[in-house]
Amino acid sequence: MNEQTRKKLMGVSVATLATALFKRGLRSQVIQAVRPVAPKGRNMVGPAFTLRYMPAREDRNQLSEFRNPEHPQRKAIETCPPGAVLVMDSRKDARAASAGDILITRLMVRGAAGVVTDGGFRDAVRIGELDIPAYHQRPSSPTNLTINEAIEINGPIGCGDAPVFPGDIVVGDDDCVIVIPAHLADEVADEAVEMTAYEDFVSERVKAGATIVGLYPCTKDENRVAFEAWRKANGR
Amino acid sequence: MNEQTRKKLMGVSVATLATALFKRGLRSQVIQAVRPVAPKGRNMVGPAFTLRYMPAREDRNQLSEFRNPEHPQRKAIETCPPGAVLVMDSRKDARAASAGDILITRLMVRGAAGVVTDGGFRDAVRIGELDIPAYHQRPSSPTNLTINEAIEINGPIGCGDAPVFPGDIVVGDDDCVIVIPAHLADEVADEAVEMTAYEDFVSERVKAGATIVGLYPCTKDENRVAFEAWRKANGR
Amino acid sequence: MNEQTRKKLMGVSVATLATALFKRGLRSQVIQAVRPVAPKGRNMVGPAFTLRYMPAREDRNQLSEFRNPEHPQRKAIETCPPGAVLVMDSRKDARAASAGDILITRLMVRGAAGVVTDGGFRDAVRIGELDIPAYHQRPSSPTNLTINEAIEINGPIGCGDAPVFPGDIVVGDDDCVIVIPAHLADEVADEAVEMTAYEDFVSERVKAGATIVGLYPCTKDENRVAFEAWRKANGR
Amino acid sequence: MNEQTRKKLMGVSVATLATALFKRGLRSQVIQAVRPVAPKGRNMVGPAFTLRYMPAREDRNQLSEFRNPEHPQRKAIETCPPGAVLVMDSRKDARAASAGDILITRLMVRGAAGVVTDGGFRDAVRIGELDIPAYHQRPSSPTNLTINEAIEINGPIGCGDAPVFPGDIVVGDDDCVIVIPAHLADEVADEAVEMTAYEDFVSERVKAGATIVGLYPCTKDENRVAFEAWRKANGR
Amino acid sequence: MNEQTRKKLMGVSVATLATALFKRGLRSQVIQAVRPVAPKGRNMVGPAFTLRYMPAREDRNQLSEFRNPEHPQRKAIETCPPGAVLVMDSRKDARAASAGDILITRLMVRGAAGVVTDGGFRDAVRIGELDIPAYHQRPSSPTNLTINEAIEINGPIGCGDAPVFPGDIVVGDDDCVIVIPAHLADEVADEAVEMTAYEDFVSERVKAGATIVGLYPCTKDENRVAFEAWRKANGR
Amino acid sequence: MNEQTRKKLMGVSVATLATALFKRGLRSQVIQAVRPVAPKGRNMVGPAFTLRYMPAREDRNQLSEFRNPEHPQRKAIETCPPGAVLVMDSRKDARAASAGDILITRLMVRGAAGVVTDGGFRDAVRIGELDIPAYHQRPSSPTNLTINEAIEINGPIGCGDAPVFPGDIVVGDDDCVIVIPAHLADEVADEAVEMTAYEDFVSERVKAGATIVGLYPCTKDENRVAFEAWRKANGR
Repeated sequence: MNEQTRKKLMGVSVATLATALFKRGLRSQVIQAVRPVAPKGRNMVGPAFTLRYMPAREDRNQLSEFRNPEHPQRKAIETCPPGAVLVMDSRKDARAASAGDILITRLMVRGAAGVVTDGGFRDAVRIGELDIPAYHQRPSSPTNLTINEAIEINGPIGCGDAPVFPGDIVVGDDDCVIVIPAHLADEVADEAVEMTAYEDFVSERVKAGATIVGLYPCTKDENRVAFEAWRKANGR
Repeated sequence: MNEQTRKKLMGVSVATLATALFKRGLRSQVIQAVRPVAPKGRNMVGPAFTLRYMPAREDRNQLSEFRNPEHPQRKAIETCPPGAVLVMDSRKDARAASAGDILITRLMVRGAAGVVTDGGFRDAVRIGELDIPAYHQRPSSPTNLTINEAIEINGPIGCGDAPVFPGDIVVGDDDCVIVIPAHLADEVADEAVEMTAYEDFVSERVKAGATIVGLYPCTKDENRVAFEAWRKANGR
Repeated sequence: MNEQTRKKLMGVSVATLATALFKRGLRSQVIQAVRPVAPKGRNMVGPAFTLRYMPAREDRNQLSEFRNPEHPQRKAIETCPPGAVLVMDSRKDARAASAGDILITRLMVRGAAGVVTDGGFRDAVRIGELDIPAYHQRPSSPTNLTINEAIEINGPIGCGDAPVFPGDIVVGDDDCVIVIPAHLADEVADEAVEMTAYEDFVSERVKAGATIVGLYPCTKDENRVAFEAWRKANGR
Repeated sequence: MNEQTRKKLMGVSVATLATALFKRGLRSQVIQAVRPVAPKGRNMVGPAFTLRYMPAREDRNQLSEFRNPEHPQRKAIETCPPGAVLVMDSRKDARAASAGDILITRLMVRGAAGVVTDGGFRDAVRIGELDIPAYHQRPSSPTNLTINEAIEINGPIGCGDAPVFPGDIVVGDDDCVIVIPAHLADEVADEAVEMTAYEDFVSERVKAGATIVGLYPCTKDENRVAFEAWRKANGR
Repeated sequence: MNEQTRKKLMGVSVATLATALFKRGLRSQVIQAVRPVAPKGRNMVGPAFTLRYMPAREDRNQLSEFRNPEHPQRKAIETCPPGAVLVMDSRKDARAASAGDILITRLMVRGAAGVVTDGGFRDAVRIGELDIPAYHQRPSSPTNLTINEAIEINGPIGCGDAPVFPGDIVVGDDDCVIVIPAHLADEVADEAVEMTAYEDFVSERVKAGATIVGLYPCTKDENRVAFEAWRKANGR
Repeated sequence: MNEQTRKKLMGVSVATLATALFKRGLRSQVIQAVRPVAPKGRNMVGPAFTLRYMPAREDRNQLSEFRNPEHPQRKAIETCPPGAVLVMDSRKDARAASAGDILITRLMVRGAAGVVTDGGFRDAVRIGELDIPAYHQRPSSPTNLTINEAIEINGPIGCGDAPVFPGDIVVGDDDCVIVIPAHLADEVADEAVEMTAYEDFVSERVKAGATIVGLYPCTKDENRVAFEAWRKANGR
């Protein structure tokens, strides 16, 4: 992805991005009901690399499957490109794990930008201590074989009811995760930077006692003027 | 599929098949929470032909999409082989339709053996009147574009938390739908026919006042003997 | 149970009984989210005989278990007293069956007044054709062993979030099922008969064009007088 | 409401209306998860008259409340205009009833066009026998006081996650119920009549063996020509 | 509200208040399934000022709506009285935000005692850092317009299945939030202070090794005597 | 329980144990959807001592019930053996509390190894500060009497959809809780210690840059050799 865009997206919130996409008619891009395994205090940004799970059929999902180096879960970990975010469609089912700390450690070492599942991670406490942002529904200790079979790498998927296409730009903060369609990433990043500047200005004003009427959103000229002055003063 | 197997499967219940698969360690083959759009009084039997939906992204899912003859939903209808059962992974979400009566009519005319979605059908009353078995969660009038995008034809999917691979044998009765792994279909059909004969014998006996102890399951020799006599007498 | 009470309860609705219990501070006696397997057009009435399921542990729940004549599910069927209603606590989970048609046939032949589960029945179409009222959440073909282990006969249970003690009086109509604490059955039956008489009178009046104001509930003397006349005229 | 519009809406399906609203960017107008208490084989059409329930506080919701002729539930029944559809916001909670047969009978006698709740009705079997379309989630015998307090008549509400404003046009068929914003009713009715004509033409063709490609939607001139001929021949 | 009552309620737990209301027959006053955005280590206490959301209709809920200074969400923020708790009925749906950090900052600056939604907040991490107690279901970044329309200020509402009337006294601790009917606030506060004294005494005793039998609840005279001594010794 | 086994189980994760049980065909032993009230950084290990709740009937569940020293909830607290884990079947319903801080303090003082409910605890913040591991779904302030009646001590139960028999060995870490059937505890503990040694070795290797292929699981001889060397070097 565009390195400038990545930098911009490191500095804006998922909430701001959600509003920018809402303006464009996209209402379903936030991955619902996932949360950081541990808050990282910084954004996760990268293109989506996907893994799809289907319901497990018992005869195809014994522990011996993992001996196969082509097993899609293991292969996804070993082929996810550096800088990418591995997004897993676990059918919103957290009764078994989508992955554990060893696989996520490997993903981190390989340079992935982060990992998201709409299921759960096992070894979640350890994953939270790793230097890679990870998002899930809740901790879940059973091996993924218990209910899920990894079936497809890097196809289009759903994650937390959001549509995810490989290459879409995934952004996570300590609240939520959002999926920006690839072709919109640059323009949305630009717009979000602008919106963030205004929101920071508003925050400052509101903390100082200003009403939100006419300020948020800006419907009064005086606020527009004050904002321009604030931008200059703050180098924004 | 094997024509003999199809005939056998027309005469056994999903419950019996579920028990035969349970014996083989398969516990998750019944498609959960779907029901007949209208009871047909006969089984639906055929190999699975699948369609997968993902969450809809609004810019990709306007009505104009249907003008594309390659749209996967429309193409699935036009390419599902005669005798097959179209099984749709609608992510267990019935807030919008998986299909409506015109498409299901076309499917019927093309000779499909039936259709199953873990979402809902629009025009459900009309679909119920067609001469094709159809199973869903509940009627749902909104067009599928509202929440779903048809994305893949004839890949492995989940339907109602059951794993479905293309070519698996799908059997539905007026209670439920089950998915028999392709390689087990013949032996499971044979076994189910045997089990059904015994169950019919038991039913008759129990209606006549017999206890289930020793009879269901058969743990007394006298019942085994009586069953053999009953089979001969009834040509089973 | 008192035969007079049984007769009275055959002629009143679950809705009326729910109101009579509500007056006594009991708000949770209707078994939630169950429905008749098939409408019977007559009430089910009888004292509760209970069976409790717990989650199945796979090593304890193989098909061979049913060979044991002491298996609680089978034993419950063979020991449920004539006239009683077998109420099953299936943990509100309908992913596997609570019982099938052979067992329910045996229950019918043995004279049970009915059967209720907060899970599902397999062979539901056949059960619906039997001459015994049966209530469940939805049809479910997998054998109960798949997720449930029958563990206790005739202890206190929950069913559809209602408390059920052995001997409580269970009443079902074509809408719902309610559990009347044993010590209240006689007085509640009496009161419900009285309420039903008034409701039938009101129904007639409302169909004839009367307002519900002052009539339902009765807050005008003229309605009280008219009701008394109606009772005499109709032998109620 | 416009009488011509009412007639048009009597002849189109909720599915067709949902598509017409989808074209206008309205995706949430179908009332989710309600169904006819009994199928009527004809549409319910009328302007919405609303009743809102809030959670019940026990001290405000004893049976004596119904003695008050101003109780909002009772008053809604007595003031709902003839021709209107009473739509109840029961917070999607069917653990207690939204109303029973006596109130719905009164509503019918007073000339209402129908009634919808996203909760449940008590006396549902009887309501199903009345000559008024009624829609709910499932039968529910407990009195509404058990969990709900009727709090507001004819304000804006949600019903089954659909927004409902008084005066919006409500249409139900044997599948679902939809809410048409008042200002769109006439144009949507016109459009739906046109769409229905085309769908009926398509249905006929598909039953006769035509492919849906180029026909549904119409992307081939020959189909447009054939449709025009069909309209003339059939007086549509 | 009564200042003495406020002080008393600052020192008691929601659990103790729930028991005091349970004694009075009120079982549904705890707002279900909400939690502090961030624990504050002190209670939130104040009279309820309410905002009700209904499902969003897309044509009424574009971003431009916020330019209207009368938009109910914005107006609620600007009119919520100092000392009050803003309670939002978001229909228990956290798929979009009920509000974000700028609005909650404004609410804080204006002197509100706290804010509760049964949906979710966007910018939740920032809201957690503000000096105002806030409670929600989970973080949710999409703008409220995505699924909700703010429709009514300071009417009776439901929040997390609890009934809330304007002026009811809302108390939150780091576990839960409860709604005390206005007319009961003073007496319940008094009683809860008494109960808390006893519970603190019990806690001390139990930590020192005492059995709960006869102590909790107090059924032995010796414990009553010891408690009285403890009160004097501890100035309670 | 075997003291050696207890020590071993203190040093392994629930995830590892889940895999060891999965190998033995046990897929449902993790208690679903519970989490630590507060992370303890050490395992909870002990034999299960159980308490079962059923739905509360209002006349049997007034506050006065707690005056009875034989009340099962209170008695369970006073009779749970030192070293045991009290496991409560709260029917997965967290709308009311399973217990509060005073009872859990008493349990701690009496030497219990921990406590688990599939409902919620009141006074959860205080319970989190106690020196006893506690697991629940979420904080819940209403007294248990509101929806639950404690009915049976030390029988077989379900907890979070896991089967629990008295004496089964319960292990919790900061992610999840698992139930090991009593007869398997020793062998599973041994195996888990072995697995943990290998996982720790793998973790170290992966952090140092090794691929998981051939290492996790071990399918290359060189890794087996390296592991043996690592064990000696690290005294494992």
